[in-house]
Amino acid sequence: MKIWRLKKGGDIRLRSGHPWVFSNELQESPKGILPGELIEVQTLQGNFMARGYGNPQSLIAFRALSFESHVMDPGSPVNVVNKLIKSWKNRHILGFSKSFRLCFSESDFLPGLIIDRYLTEVAGVQYQIFSYQLLTAGMQKIFSSLEEIFKLLVENAIENKYSDISWDQTILLSKNDVNIRKLEGLAVEEARVVRNPDEVNLLDLKIQIPSVINSKETIFFQVNLVEGQKTGFFLDQTHNMKLVIEALKPRMNEFKDKPLKIADLCCYMGQWSAQLASFLNSAGVKAEITLVDVSEMALKMAQKNLAQFDNVILISKKADVLDGLTEFPENNYDVVISDPPAFVKNKKDVETGLHGYMKLNQQAFRIANHSGLVASCTCSGLVQMVDFKGSLRKGILRSGKKAKLIAEGGLGWDHPQLIQFPEGQYLKMLLHTVE
Amino acid sequence: MKIWRLKKGGDIRLRSGHPWVFSNELQESPKGILPGELIEVQTLQGNFMARGYGNPQSLIAFRALSFESHVMDPGSPVNVVNKLIKSWKNRHILGFSKSFRLCFSESDFLPGLIIDRYLTEVAGVQYQIFSYQLLTAGMQKIFSSLEEIFKLLVENAIENKYSDISWDQTILLSKNDVNIRKLEGLAVEEARVVRNPDEVNLLDLKIQIPSVINSKETIFFQVNLVEGQKTGFFLDQTHNMKLVIEALKPRMNEFKDKPLKIADLCCYMGQWSAQLASFLNSAGVKAEITLVDVSEMALKMAQKNLAQFDNVILISKKADVLDGLTEFPENNYDVVISDPPAFVKNKKDVETGLHGYMKLNQQAFRIANHSGLVASCTCSGLVQMVDFKGSLRKGILRSGKKAKLIAEGGLGWDHPQLIQFPEGQYLKMLLHTVE
Repeated sequence: MKIWRLKKGGDIRLRSGHPWVFSNELQESPKGILPGELIEVQTLQGNFMARGYGNPQSLIAFRALSFESHVMDPGSPVNVVNKLIKSWKNRHILGFSKSFRLCFSESDFLPGLIIDRYLTEVAGVQYQIFSYQLLTAGMQKIFSSLEEIFKLLVENAIENKYSDISWDQTILLSKNDVNIRKLEGLAVEEARVVRNPDEVNLLDLKIQIPSVINSKETIFFQVNLVEGQKTGFFLDQTHNMKLVIEALKPRMNEFKDKPLKIADLCCYMGQWSAQLASFLNSAGVKAEITLVDVSEMALKMAQKNLAQFDNVILISKKADVLDGLTEFPENNYDVVISDPPAFVKNKKDVETGLHGYMKLNQQAFRIANHSGLVASCTCSGLVQMVDFKGSLRKGILRSGKKAKLIAEGGLGWDHPQLIQFPEGQYLKMLLHTVE
Repeated sequence: MKIWRLKKGGDIRLRSGHPWVFSNELQESPKGILPGELIEVQTLQGNFMARGYGNPQSLIAFRALSFESHVMDPGSPVNVVNKLIKSWKNRHILGFSKSFRLCFSESDFLPGLIIDRYLTEVAGVQYQIFSYQLLTAGMQKIFSSLEEIFKLLVENAIENKYSDISWDQTILLSKNDVNIRKLEGLAVEEARVVRNPDEVNLLDLKIQIPSVINSKETIFFQVNLVEGQKTGFFLDQTHNMKLVIEALKPRMNEFKDKPLKIADLCCYMGQWSAQLASFLNSAGVKAEITLVDVSEMALKMAQKNLAQFDNVILISKKADVLDGLTEFPENNYDVVISDPPAFVKNKKDVETGLHGYMKLNQQAFRIANHSGLVASCTCSGLVQMVDFKGSLRKGILRSGKKAKLIAEGGLGWDHPQLIQFPEGQYLKMLLHTVE
């Protein structure tokens, strides 16, 4: 195995458990290996630090897979599946079933690997779909044993009673259609169905998502996993949805004779509205939901996904939330969800993005009624909480409303974090009550 | 009304909605007024900024009560009660009843005023106790109309149906026994029962605290409100308790035949354990609770408060958590609560305090079992989240465990925050699952 030594002081991050080594922290230039090759990293003095994979083409030259010196091949199928099963166990005991994020890259000690597991039922047969992204050359190399890894995973999951779905009902979907792969010298591939024994139509299927407050209840979403963004769907908002519902629960009596009014800004597939509608349905409360999105297609999908609920009055508005909300009436909504796509995709956009969050939230608070709730989200990893709060502060001030912050949310619990790896925490949510 | 003008640039904080002006931001020295006198603050150019109260003896020379130019006397009983009723409404719609924080100082737009409302029943009669702290000269002055304010508040609360307890069943307890008053040139007073029509014994009474997951269920705590810290009890952990219980809920099947083991480090009155026991009771699960505190008195109180639950095995250990935990067996507890008193009380103690959090959490993670939960709290306002995370990171590393952060908690929702006033956010909680 190739050995790389760190410069003096280059070991601090690794020692904290953070899995990255930058190329300028290495004693010698990281040449002479193939991208993704197994590497051992040592201190300048030659002491073992970690094993993982290297990439001479990436600024992040090394990502650790193991800090334990006895683990000789941390990228072997068995070792990878061991980690995946620990992650599955983690999700299982936290109550995640049906559809959830199974592997969240660095946070699950598998840098560069995203796996979302979706559950669907077609003609009475249940299928699990592993929709995965290989974001680094090292992970791409490890997953040359793709079928071996997933097959072993499925068998282990059954053995551990985390799942009862067999390999025959397991579908593999590669979603390597992301630009971030370029940083690793990898091609941006088309999304590709890798395994699909019964030829389930992934372009149009109903996935099963548990209700966030009652996991025994299932919400169905009509999705196109192949063409949808990321792994085809978003699973990251469950914790925040729960917080909003918890804040609504005590108020149900207020809405016995009038509908609870929701504005779902950037509704996309209607997930927030569906979770809220599912809860309100179970509480016997009527909902009036205003879906807002700039995409006609998103609005149609959201409408379709909300059709499964009774007692919902649906209003659809095609609008760009950055300038199309001024026409909306003020003091009108009991709940306003502001969950836009990432406004900031690279560092030079931070200022513009923060201005966008300010403008959007100004409107969100303006249209919220007195004693309403506003959930303000950002999924821009480059936006720090303190700056997001700054833009929100200005937005609230300009809205003319007074608001009290009651909770700070974040990623769903199937997207765990490592304290030593703050880079993983991209999603923030601030929940306010309006006075 | 006395007018104070700000130096150039001295208006920035006020414009953000932050209610403080420091003495060095004023154009002239803030002399010639009585501490607590009503003041209007203007820009250098003479434009209205805010009205509030001043104190020439405090570094914080001015605290705003109103940013609206038409509010001439923001400290009048009517104006104060208007704000208190808005706060009560806020708590009410969020489901707070029985005992809760009614006023959280700056966050409720009443700087210097803390009011906790406790509910108790004596000989079949319900009483509400307003336990309050006046932390500034201005608030002390405003509360020279003490009875007028509380009487009006009680009447308004009944009118709004937030409460049905009359003035005759209202008890007032002054808890101005805090050192922070010295910064305002105020005396540290003894706790004092100001109003107690039926002479309820506040030295030994049972207050009613709702279960955090089922507010219809009541937990009783035997307390000494007069001699207890702060307002006599702590109400700030409800959100965090809820998060821990939410994380436990899906696991109840695991504990059908064995007790769920809890280590309650720094248990004080046993609130965490009582909330957990109440939940486990309702789920039909037996609890084995190890209460740990350095104070014999705290252990006794906690034992008493836990006696109301069936199916609880209680173990008490008198120990200083900073060096008394090394004897505890490793990998032994399903839930570890680490909720120590503030390790950092002034800036020079930050380093020592962070070291303390590291040591305590090293043990907390060591004694937690694999797949256990650890809730790590700090109530040190001077400790920033990023530094708390740093000490926790080290503690986890030293424990030899791997842990995934699933949620960041904070103050209960009856302790709201203002984005523009980060000073209010003193309580942090990090919830980890152990691998």
